[in-house]
Amino acid sequence: MRVTIADVARLAGVSKATVSRVLNGRPDVDRATQARIEEIMAETGYVPSSRAVDLARGRTRTVGVLAPTLRTPWMPELLQGVADVVEPSGYGLLLHSAAGGAPALERFAANVRGHAVDGVLAIDPGMALEHLRDLHRQGLPVVVVNTGGSRVPLPSVGADYADGGRRAAELLLAAGRLRLAMITGPVEEHSGAACADGFADRLTGTGAVLRASHVTEADGTEQGGYDAVQRLLRARLFFDGLFAHGDLMAAGALRALQEAGRQVPGEVAVVGFGDLPPAAYTLPPLTTVRVPWAEMGAAAARALIDRLRGEPVADDPVDFETSLVSRGSTPAVGRIPGQRSRRTARSAELPAF
Amino acid sequence: MRVTIADVARLAGVSKATVSRVLNGRPDVDRATQARIEEIMAETGYVPSSRAVDLARGRTRTVGVLAPTLRTPWMPELLQGVADVVEPSGYGLLLHSAAGGAPALERFAANVRGHAVDGVLAIDPGMALEHLRDLHRQGLPVVVVNTGGSRVPLPSVGADYADGGRRAAELLLAAGRLRLAMITGPVEEHSGAACADGFADRLTGTGAVLRASHVTEADGTEQGGYDAVQRLLRARLFFDGLFAHGDLMAAGALRALQEAGRQVPGEVAVVGFGDLPPAAYTLPPLTTVRVPWAEMGAAAARALIDRLRGEPVADDPVDFETSLVSRGSTPAVGRIPGQRSRRTARSAELPAF
Repeated sequence: MRVTIADVARLAGVSKATVSRVLNGRPDVDRATQARIEEIMAETGYVPSSRAVDLARGRTRTVGVLAPTLRTPWMPELLQGVADVVEPSGYGLLLHSAAGGAPALERFAANVRGHAVDGVLAIDPGMALEHLRDLHRQGLPVVVVNTGGSRVPLPSVGADYADGGRRAAELLLAAGRLRLAMITGPVEEHSGAACADGFADRLTGTGAVLRASHVTEADGTEQGGYDAVQRLLRARLFFDGLFAHGDLMAAGALRALQEAGRQVPGEVAVVGFGDLPPAAYTLPPLTTVRVPWAEMGAAAARALIDRLRGEPVADDPVDFETSLVSRGSTPAVGRIPGQRSRRTARSAELPAF
Repeated sequence: MRVTIADVARLAGVSKATVSRVLNGRPDVDRATQARIEEIMAETGYVPSSRAVDLARGRTRTVGVLAPTLRTPWMPELLQGVADVVEPSGYGLLLHSAAGGAPALERFAANVRGHAVDGVLAIDPGMALEHLRDLHRQGLPVVVVNTGGSRVPLPSVGADYADGGRRAAELLLAAGRLRLAMITGPVEEHSGAACADGFADRLTGTGAVLRASHVTEADGTEQGGYDAVQRLLRARLFFDGLFAHGDLMAAGALRALQEAGRQVPGEVAVVGFGDLPPAAYTLPPLTTVRVPWAEMGAAAARALIDRLRGEPVADDPVDFETSLVSRGSTPAVGRIPGQRSRRTARSAELPAF
């Protein structure tokens, strides 16, 4: 027989209103009473009726989040942005990491089939995209956070990478740099191509030059950025400004420039991309294009929850603007559009332990 | 009326065995059939009976994870370790961030009262510890990941911080450094005290000296580490080896030493603590004491799931050993116990995008 709130109240020797206050997390119940009521709930297996109604209707009040490996440097920021919206909305956040490959994705699919979630927020779903589109067609609300810059056939939130490239160019121009070089990420990444195009476009007609010989590709890692700068230097190519589409590559570039005895920012000004945790810890600290990871996660979560509540939501992709975080790897210049103050060092505020 | 697997099979024109294969994520069903079956499940609101049985018995096959802000630098590693165990065990991972303070903790408590989880894995629960102990007393399995180094009255997984301090001392001794300095974290952190004790104990009788004047406290941030080294230098204190209980403080120390024209590692060898993402990106890259965050998360998850399965588990706290990651901020020395190779640069392997 189902245990009711009246049963719990009777066993605890309190009113139903008191049990209700405990259920709703109200502070006006003394600790001993609260503990007794919780104990009785645990013993009797009481399930609050709102949850029972939800279950009967097939609602779980839970959002599934599908994420690639949690080790991606921007993931904590993005996931915190998601949690900051999902939890106060009264939804649970069921986290699936796709780090385990196909078996992990199958477990995710099985959970969706088992109606464990009301909707899905998928971060860079990659190979799961087609499956998500099928689920979306079958009526499951799905929102994608898309950091790759490609167009996806689902409601999505991303960043404006071309805008990021333009901002990097503007800063180097303001610093008077005329002979530029760029380290791009792997060619198959749309975000990198958009960013490179924005960077090159902004230079048109300015007198500053980015020759094809001065554009080199790397794999996104610190070592990749180090090797890329070594290639440029071995080819005896001159450059006084360098833009790397990724802070880890920019960190590697700083290491190669230091080893070669090139002063940063005096001889070469360096701009990274992402404002990832290493950016504030390099020597000199890295000027970079900030991508608003937390805001993107929050916006995607809000779009999903609006859908779950049946509110009207546009299906157009949302692209966030980037901004500049100016640190020591570029010379101080006057304030330019989209620039944050030199003191902005998000990561530096975090204690290690 | 409850939809059964037979109903789904009939509507899809397939056998019950085929529906079962789709439910279990078996690959031997062609894509079109799989899509049709999933569509019918979605339309009819079919819930697999194993899940229905779980619900009726008050089991959710879900583990609640309570984490402080996800922005803590070691959180992604630790959380990935948790997910790597929880998901293949057939459990869902319901993530609660305590970043929202008391209201966030109340939502967590309400979820637990609503039987949304079978057990709880709490990462550095802080103010929630007492509530978790009550839940544990009432029969809810709880395991704590404890990075603070204090003793907690619940099954817990942590790291051996004294061991970490000893390893840092061993490396500086092997490098021939005799006049040492240390930057500790805030005094109220047990982990910092244990680490400092381990460091000092290992120096006893070696000829190397850590004077009280050379021990200074900082707040765990990069700026805190920078300021700490400036204090030591302003006091005209000599030191040729520096240990900072936190990689961010060590990164700040490197910046202050560089500004003061002190060669690292030539004049001052620097050892950090944690092997957090910035460690591999500083100039020179930081030698540090590695804490096995992912292994700690995995061990805690395994301990919780063993409890959920009713397997016998010891309640003793589990403390993980640390290891040394030797990079450019200390001179090359012969191999010493617990040292990893100089090429170990976990974070450097991660692409930025």
